[in-house]
Amino acid sequence: MVATLSFYQERNNDQLSHWLDTPEFQDQSLIQAMRYGLLLGGKRVRPYLVYITGEMLGCSLEALDTPASAIECIHAYSLIHDDLPAMDDDNLRRGQPTCHIKFDEATAILTGDALQTLAFSILAEGKLSVDAESNRVKMIQALAHASGARGMCLGQALDLEAENRTVSFEELRQIHNNKTGALIKCAVILGALAAGEKGRAILPQLEAYADAVGLAFQIQDDILDIISDTETLGKPQGSDEAQNKSTYPSLLGLEGARQKAQNLLTEALHALDSIPYNTQLLEEFARYVVERKN
Amino acid sequence: MVATLSFYQERNNDQLSHWLDTPEFQDQSLIQAMRYGLLLGGKRVRPYLVYITGEMLGCSLEALDTPASAIECIHAYSLIHDDLPAMDDDNLRRGQPTCHIKFDEATAILTGDALQTLAFSILAEGKLSVDAESNRVKMIQALAHASGARGMCLGQALDLEAENRTVSFEELRQIHNNKTGALIKCAVILGALAAGEKGRAILPQLEAYADAVGLAFQIQDDILDIISDTETLGKPQGSDEAQNKSTYPSLLGLEGARQKAQNLLTEALHALDSIPYNTQLLEEFARYVVERKN
Repeated sequence: MVATLSFYQERNNDQLSHWLDTPEFQDQSLIQAMRYGLLLGGKRVRPYLVYITGEMLGCSLEALDTPASAIECIHAYSLIHDDLPAMDDDNLRRGQPTCHIKFDEATAILTGDALQTLAFSILAEGKLSVDAESNRVKMIQALAHASGARGMCLGQALDLEAENRTVSFEELRQIHNNKTGALIKCAVILGALAAGEKGRAILPQLEAYADAVGLAFQIQDDILDIISDTETLGKPQGSDEAQNKSTYPSLLGLEGARQKAQNLLTEALHALDSIPYNTQLLEEFARYVVERKN
Repeated sequence: MVATLSFYQERNNDQLSHWLDTPEFQDQSLIQAMRYGLLLGGKRVRPYLVYITGEMLGCSLEALDTPASAIECIHAYSLIHDDLPAMDDDNLRRGQPTCHIKFDEATAILTGDALQTLAFSILAEGKLSVDAESNRVKMIQALAHASGARGMCLGQALDLEAENRTVSFEELRQIHNNKTGALIKCAVILGALAAGEKGRAILPQLEAYADAVGLAFQIQDDILDIISDTETLGKPQGSDEAQNKSTYPSLLGLEGARQKAQNLLTEALHALDSIPYNTQLLEEFARYVVERKN
């Protein structure tokens, strides 16, 4: 898992770097900040899911670069805006100064904006396989759906509104499903659509897998926020608690949250059962999600 | 001109309102703020250009609603982010409290983000004419190109960097071309692409027209910032000067800037000469741009 992950990380970094060579004004702070926000670390979990889902279906790496790059741009933009003083007000991300600390707030806002736009540029302009060309608009639809007011942005808004009060399980699930889950699910959907007809045929199973994995991912994040140290996390430990955020550990206790993550792992693996391809990497990924230390 | 403009304004408002009925969580502050930012006034200049360009080419109104709505979402998001304290720090927009004053800063950031996403959702999901279906991806490319790091966001970054110093003509042209011009031009391109093959055939002339009109639009904005009062503008008068921004009036004097706008009007009208359709509304629009009072 670690070896394959780092292979795709490098590939994704190369691709993202290539997309940033295109704009003029390379010495402009906007382009430099986009490079900073995109290329300075990051686990590349969403691109990884695009790649392993697509490759499982026989899609070439080259034909997966486009959706993998696009989805990472959305993720990167969301982190930059999330870290802003008016949002989570974080100074550190991946062990480095956040974008508005390294540059300034105005640049960080514009950088996030431009990275979101870049995601749609990439998906509209980037190379796809011949089979997937007819899915290009569907892929743009899926990315927009997952990241806007019916997905990630909604999740962040619900999350902000839930600060300083205790939320119900159902509310917390809704926050997580939108805030983190939607984009994780979208990664799997994009990988499938990039493989053409074959991918569309198994979308329901893949979506069920991704729903479970996405929620488990967020629960594990919340667990790590409690048990890990700042150095391992690359961001301040305990920041959820400091912001009075409801999390699975705060609602269920640490053990309860761990158990919930394990149940979701079982669900995810079960969803893969009826997929007639080699699902080994997707299985490993689901295990990694609930076992990872950062 | 005023009568046709208000007809398209209403149509565009209805369309935008319809797109905002789609997301769940209608009482969520995010959706309310999107509605506030999108529907509270605005001249609808970009949708208007989409409509009159497309209709000139024989495209139906229904088939133009999609690009008209999408481009207004981009414009609305850019205003919301532009007004933020870290950017222009404006409290008034269209005579009303800006989004971060009415709601809060975090909501305003997310609202802008979600409106950008909505633009791409609309363009990927909305109705187009049968002829234009093959242009859908091109339309998404055009909108992303015009609004990101090769267009509007770049223009805003260049603009920020130019504060508190005198810029050259060439720099100012680059700022305006990207900050305002790119989206004005994109409106005309989208209207043309929505009309299918016919529109693609006259893209060069339309682009030349839009380049001139876009720059004239910004120059007139700068002129109005000096000579108009706050009530007519709907935002504080003299805000450019207060922010030490270089503008055409500050570089050329008021008369020089007026002359420049007139020259651009002549250029714009000249570009329409070789278009074999009824360009009356495009001509009137170019005149409106340099004669408008707000």
